[in-house]
Parts: sequence; structure tokens; C-alpha cells
Amino acid sequence: MKTTNFRLPKTKVGDITFKKIIRTGKRLFAKHGFQATSINDIIEKSKVAAGTFYLYFDNKLALYMYLLEEYKKEIRETSAMAAVGYLTRYEIERAGLKSFIKYAKRDPLAYKLIWESMSVDPAIFKQYYQSFSKSYVYHLMEFVDLGQVRSDVDLETASYVLMGIANFVGLQVVFKEDITEEQIDWIVDECMKIVKNGLLT
Amino acid sequence: MKTTNFRLPKTKVGDITFKKIIRTGKRLFAKHGFQATSINDIIEKSKVAAGTFYLYFDNKLALYMYLLEEYKKEIRETSAMAAVGYLTRYEIERAGLKSFIKYAKRDPLAYKLIWESMSVDPAIFKQYYQSFSKSYVYHLMEFVDLGQVRSDVDLETASYVLMGIANFVGLQVVFKEDITEEQIDWIVDECMKIVKNGLLT
Repeated sequence: MKTTNFRLPKTKVGDITFKKIIRTGKRLFAKHGFQATSINDIIEKSKVAAGTFYLYFDNKLALYMYLLEEYKKEIRETSAMAAVGYLTRYEIERAGLKSFIKYAKRDPLAYKLIWESMSVDPAIFKQYYQSFSKSYVYHLMEFVDLGQVRSDVDLETASYVLMGIANFVGLQVVFKEDITEEQIDWIVDECMKIVKNGLLT
Repeated sequence: MKTTNFRLPKTKVGDITFKKIIRTGKRLFAKHGFQATSINDIIEKSKVAAGTFYLYFDNKLALYMYLLEEYKKEIRETSAMAAVGYLTRYEIERAGLKSFIKYAKRDPLAYKLIWESMSVDPAIFKQYYQSFSKSYVYHLMEFVDLGQVRSDVDLETASYVLMGIANFVGLQVVFKEDITEEQIDWIVDECMKIVKNGLLT
């Protein structure tokens, strides 16, 4: 994986410029893709001075990595927040799934940006999901000890199963343009039936 | 969704040229992405005469759509072939999952090409998975009637759950560079425990 750096702004004015670059980068990467977007496009569309970009980012990849990290943090925090107050693994999975799906519905560009990392650098893509998986396994393990998660299933595999369900049921929901909050809740409950007891008889 | 056309070659020589273009297109789209690849790049790297490209494809999108259709057909046929001779839904799901994962391991570029359709044209991406989902629902329905699939779960949701599991467990396997055939089988069986009986107690 390539290493590349960003520097956070230190002033209020800097903060405004930084955010302009972030927003423009996100929009252009999502619209045209990472490869087809140039630093000049980002500078031009952000309406910032040419040198300003390099104050904060080493290069285009540094901006991309910043955005990806931001998504990762936001997605994790959203799930963690949603799970607050719930005690059983069923309730926690349900809250996490629902919050992920609603996040995907609000910001479907997340899929594009995250999945394009496969082309940007396969190591970034791999690291993205492997780190999610590791933290998932860690949390599932606690609930194996509590007797709420089956103890005879490989937890790494379980983590990819759960990530796959969240991502693809997220797509199912994103595809339905006029879906209501109640319909999303219903789909989440249908999913949870499978997570809890399986699909086959 | 944009409509665009391709024309199959009618001669043996044409067939060779056609295949050269297909192979080069696949490689360049996978390497640089659809947006950053030009028709000229494809013509140059395929070493075909400039006009030849247009004999077969209206434009770059036509070639991309051809490749996507090819993947879709190949993935479906591979699963269908793998399931031949199995009678229970458990065995069919297991064979389909294993064949999908092995396909992904052999040709991980499939993920890139399919998922990039989100940027090429969101309608293509949506149509890709919605058509998979529809055919999955149709097959699951038969097994609800046979009493082998739960009758109290929404089958559309179940189809996205199963596609999500296949795609993400496929990634889990692609990420492991030195994984053996036996280890893949083991992961598939761990998955199937969840598909059969769920993950939570």
C-alpha cells in the first residue's frame, strides 16, 4: 500500500478551504472516478488557490485516503451510536444493520468511493474490509462467551457474511427510490430472521 | 440506461480481431477503469486497425456492456453447472456459493468491472443486481413450495442476503493469497451453517 500524507488546517480560514477541497474531491471522485479526476480539476472546482491543495495533501491519493478514512470512521461511529443502550447481540446487529442501510440510502456515493479503492490500490481495498472484519470478530467473540452467538462457526467468515448482508441489502434499499422508513424497517427485520435462524428448513 | 450496440464477427479472421479487442478492453478497464480508458488506448493495445473497433462496437460503452453481459452469463452458467445433480436447496446453495467464490478467486477483475458500472451508469449497475435477484427469487420460490426454504421470509430480501454473502465471502477468499482448495471448502461450509441455521442462538 502506498503511503501518503495529509495535514489538517490550523486556522479557521484554513478550515474553510480544507472543507471546500474535501467536498469537491468527494463529488468529483464519485462522478468521474479517482483515475479520471485530476488535482487541477479539484483545485479549479473548489475555487481555491493552486498552491493551497498541497498545503493539506501530498497528492490526489492523499485526498482519496482522507475521504476513505472519513467514511470508515463515520460508518463505524454511526453503527456504534445506533447500538447504544442495546444489550443482546440480536438488538445490536439489528441496530447496526439498520443504521448502515440508512447511511447507504442517504449517501450512496459511499459505495462508489469505497469500492473504487480496488482500482486505486488493491491493498487499500483489502485493508479497508480486513480492518472492519477484525473489529467485527472482536465484538462477536464477546457474545460467543455470553452464549448469544453460535460457538461452532468461524467468526472471520461470520464477519464477511454480516458485512455482505449489510452491503447488499443496502443496495436493495438504494435501488428502491420511493422506499419509506417503515419499509426499510421491515426489510431489516426480514434480514434479521435469516441472521437469527437461517434461511433453510 | 443508455442503449448501445455491438455486432458479433461473421468470419474467422473477424473472430480473432473481436477477441483481441475484448481481451484488451477487459484488461484496460480493470487496470485503469472505464472512464480513464479511451477507445484509442484499446485500439492501440489490441493492435487492430482503427476502423475495426467500430465494426463491432458502437462506442466504448458498447464494449463495456458486452463484457458485463459476458460476466453475468458466465457467473450464472458456472453456478447452474455446479448445481447439476443436486436436489436439496442446501446442496444447490452450497455448490453455487463454492463455484462463485472459486470464480472470484480465479478472476478477481470481475468485481472491478461489475462494481465500476455504478460510475459508468447507475442504471446498468441496478439492472445487473436486480436481474440476478429476480432469477434467485424465482428459484427460491420453488423450494419454499418443497418446504426447504422458510416460508416466512421475504424472498427478495433473501436474494440480496445470499448475493451479499457470496460477494463478501468471495472477497474474504480473494484477500488470502495462499489459500488452498480445502480451506475454501471449509469457509464455504462455515457460511452454509449460517445460511442453514443462522448465527445467533
